[in-house]
Amino acid sequence: MSKQTFRLQELADKVDAAVKGNPERLISGLSTLTGGRPDTLSFLANPAYQKHLSSTDAGAVILTAEMAEGYDGDGLIHSNPYLVYAQLSHLWDTAALALEQRHIAASATVAESAQIGERVFIDEGVRIGEDAIIADGVVLGANVVVGRGVTIGEATRLYPNVVLYHDVHLGTHCTLQSGVIIGSDGFGFAPSPDGWTPIAQLGGVRIDDHVQIGANTTIDRGALEDTVIEQGVILDNQIQVAHNVRIGRNTAIAACSAIAGSTSIGANCVVGGASGIAGHLEIVDGVHITAMTMVIKSLTEPGVYSSGTGVQPNAKWRKSIARLRQLDQMHGKIKALEKKLKNTE
Amino acid sequence: MSKQTFRLQELADKVDAAVKGNPERLISGLSTLTGGRPDTLSFLANPAYQKHLSSTDAGAVILTAEMAEGYDGDGLIHSNPYLVYAQLSHLWDTAALALEQRHIAASATVAESAQIGERVFIDEGVRIGEDAIIADGVVLGANVVVGRGVTIGEATRLYPNVVLYHDVHLGTHCTLQSGVIIGSDGFGFAPSPDGWTPIAQLGGVRIDDHVQIGANTTIDRGALEDTVIEQGVILDNQIQVAHNVRIGRNTAIAACSAIAGSTSIGANCVVGGASGIAGHLEIVDGVHITAMTMVIKSLTEPGVYSSGTGVQPNAKWRKSIARLRQLDQMHGKIKALEKKLKNTE
Amino acid sequence: MSKQTFRLQELADKVDAAVKGNPERLISGLSTLTGGRPDTLSFLANPAYQKHLSSTDAGAVILTAEMAEGYDGDGLIHSNPYLVYAQLSHLWDTAALALEQRHIAASATVAESAQIGERVFIDEGVRIGEDAIIADGVVLGANVVVGRGVTIGEATRLYPNVVLYHDVHLGTHCTLQSGVIIGSDGFGFAPSPDGWTPIAQLGGVRIDDHVQIGANTTIDRGALEDTVIEQGVILDNQIQVAHNVRIGRNTAIAACSAIAGSTSIGANCVVGGASGIAGHLEIVDGVHITAMTMVIKSLTEPGVYSSGTGVQPNAKWRKSIARLRQLDQMHGKIKALEKKLKNTE
Repeated sequence: MSKQTFRLQELADKVDAAVKGNPERLISGLSTLTGGRPDTLSFLANPAYQKHLSSTDAGAVILTAEMAEGYDGDGLIHSNPYLVYAQLSHLWDTAALALEQRHIAASATVAESAQIGERVFIDEGVRIGEDAIIADGVVLGANVVVGRGVTIGEATRLYPNVVLYHDVHLGTHCTLQSGVIIGSDGFGFAPSPDGWTPIAQLGGVRIDDHVQIGANTTIDRGALEDTVIEQGVILDNQIQVAHNVRIGRNTAIAACSAIAGSTSIGANCVVGGASGIAGHLEIVDGVHITAMTMVIKSLTEPGVYSSGTGVQPNAKWRKSIARLRQLDQMHGKIKALEKKLKNTE
Repeated sequence: MSKQTFRLQELADKVDAAVKGNPERLISGLSTLTGGRPDTLSFLANPAYQKHLSSTDAGAVILTAEMAEGYDGDGLIHSNPYLVYAQLSHLWDTAALALEQRHIAASATVAESAQIGERVFIDEGVRIGEDAIIADGVVLGANVVVGRGVTIGEATRLYPNVVLYHDVHLGTHCTLQSGVIIGSDGFGFAPSPDGWTPIAQLGGVRIDDHVQIGANTTIDRGALEDTVIEQGVILDNQIQVAHNVRIGRNTAIAACSAIAGSTSIGANCVVGGASGIAGHLEIVDGVHITAMTMVIKSLTEPGVYSSGTGVQPNAKWRKSIARLRQLDQMHGKIKALEKKLKNTE
Repeated sequence: MSKQTFRLQELADKVDAAVKGNPERLISGLSTLTGGRPDTLSFLANPAYQKHLSSTDAGAVILTAEMAEGYDGDGLIHSNPYLVYAQLSHLWDTAALALEQRHIAASATVAESAQIGERVFIDEGVRIGEDAIIADGVVLGANVVVGRGVTIGEATRLYPNVVLYHDVHLGTHCTLQSGVIIGSDGFGFAPSPDGWTPIAQLGGVRIDDHVQIGANTTIDRGALEDTVIEQGVILDNQIQVAHNVRIGRNTAIAACSAIAGSTSIGANCVVGGASGIAGHLEIVDGVHITAMTMVIKSLTEPGVYSSGTGVQPNAKWRKSIARLRQLDQMHGKIKALEKKLKNTE
């Protein structure tokens, strides 16, 4: 596939940046600073990489006016280089499909009562259940399963092998990576003398617009009311969202985190990877939880929170851990010493 | 879909509860206390929610005689309100299929040597391998893959995109949520000078009756003998069960926990979410492991076990962690102080 | 299925072992020491199991000359019993397919521009995209999805429901268990006043020869350059590999570990289960990380590393954790005591 080529000035115009140097330079792709070629555009967003600027082979670099001081090459000057890079990246996205007409593959099976919009792309092996409503511009990858009564908003894309159970509602402009499962039964069982009695999970899942969901992430349906993911939330791979969780607008959660049932996370939070958040908690807006944190109480103030013990050489770790178990004893010894010393005074 | 409606007395009769108030009240669904309407039935199981009882709009509430004191509304009186709620929930479960006749979708492919029972529902894209035996009343969701020689017991339901490798045996009345994979190869490799030599995984998986398995959970086949999940076990989403693990009757494991190879977990255990249990361990019956615990030794006595450090504001956490690394040094200082003080006596 | 039977001498010849006892003994399968029968071959690799040797019912045992001292039964003598067991295990692997001719199932859909090799096995519901190249002897299980421009090397096997996005390159002799997803979009978003702006993920994934990948593991495509898994790497189930990670030759990673973006792991490393490795780190060759470790800094020396606190009875754990939060205070008290004592001298 031949790569799209643009003049530097054209790119500047698309993102409201100023050209530094030659506006006619031809750019046919993006690159890192260290992996550049004369026809690639790179970017400098992290000051740690400034050291690579003078030696880059990239034909042009997106950077701030300040960072550009002393840089001789061509570039795009903007106050937010990383955002400009994000915006331009889509010019070279070969995964995007040109949806000019409705395509429904021969092996897809669509219930008669389902409503299918214009310019959709429905690939081989897709299964769409009764009363589903698929809006314009939706992409359903191969072997996607859409349950009864599901609604999918405009321009939302599902990669292959996504499963939506019945009564799941997706907003517009969402992207669900492969293996995502939405609307599976929550883990609800009542103990009884005969074992665990399953509780029918009668709620659904509501996912608002512009939500991004990573590969193999699972979101359970609510027990009685809906599990809710608000607008602009971004979820990485292999995240577990239990029944009746609510995640507020624009919150970002990194891979392999787990959120237990009925917990509510506020807006504009960031949750580091492999964190665990217990059930029935409230996390307010603006909380930042670092990776692998164990959250076992509500967080009522914005701020940065952590737990866990960082990596050590195994021999030192063994000592720390042994001492940790003696902490109560150590505490007692300090008290005894304090008392003794007081007595000697 | 019109919701089923019942008189309160009808519901009481189904679960052996006593009616409080109006036995003719019509109930057309379940609700929480705070999300109730005049035609919904709610329940009060957790004393923390008692405060919502006086203000609920729910037409009736399931509660104990004790909790009902001072409550004016209609209700169902029972010693175990949560169990009654669980039992009644299935009346409004729209996911349940009425399996009146055998349905095998046009795009399903069933090996000639497979035996298929009565009143099964086999959806589009299902693949059933040679010599598989599918009992009466089994539901196989879209794109389920059933390997050679698999047996599935009566009334067991597999949601879309479940994969059963060859020689997997499922009992009766099990439910497997989407994305579950059973019988994948265990992680067995012998180190050799040329790298890792794979060990063929020759065992299978045996899953007994009434087992519930959550979305994207994986259970590996045994190396030589079977991996075994006993009757009544409930597994949440994204759990990893390695080869030759054995999980005892009615044990419950919450999401994202991982159990390494050849470990045996007893009956009636509860494992909190995102816990890790190392390989070749024995956990006795009646052990309760709290969430995110790292189990690196056998647990030979019933009881509650934990590990990890709970969440703190990041600045405080940094101090705790720094001091944790100095613990051995602190221990030494205390000893020195004790010695000195002894000398001064 | 009748099991293959071999004379002990035949087996010895295959792996260059010496027969102890009766070379004519017939062996029709492998077993553990405790689960043996007169026609099974067992092995003794872990000295902890030596105690079972004298009482085993297995007809023969693979062991070292040293371990065989005092053992009366038949056996195969070799310096590396575990490797011999691994090599012989494949004789009884009923999962292996005899690929004598090309098989493409009726319901598979293969793009016209795709190139398909000889002796492939392509099962029902498989979807192969444009310009894909599938080499000789490749097995694609049911409902596997192969994206545009993917290449799959000779004798590589994909179990059912694997998804390969576009521009993913797999080497020869790899095995991917079910539910594996390769080439999903990395978690790349630029913050903007309107929320998170997605960054098109323009790199691919390169997986070299003899790589093994466990069920439901996810490997994201690179942002600009490729995510790379080098030759001989073995990955267990439910591992998350973020964009632009590089994993060096013969490194082994156990289940449920997560590696954040742009981190590089060296060759011959071992990562224990449920570990987390933060982004933009360098782990050198020969590092061993124990299970559930939180790696938040680069590891520049080979060796064994750990973190976390092991399991304790809950009551003791509560005390340890409370004291951990007082550590800074305890440290202050020790200092005060030291000072006081100095003053009294």
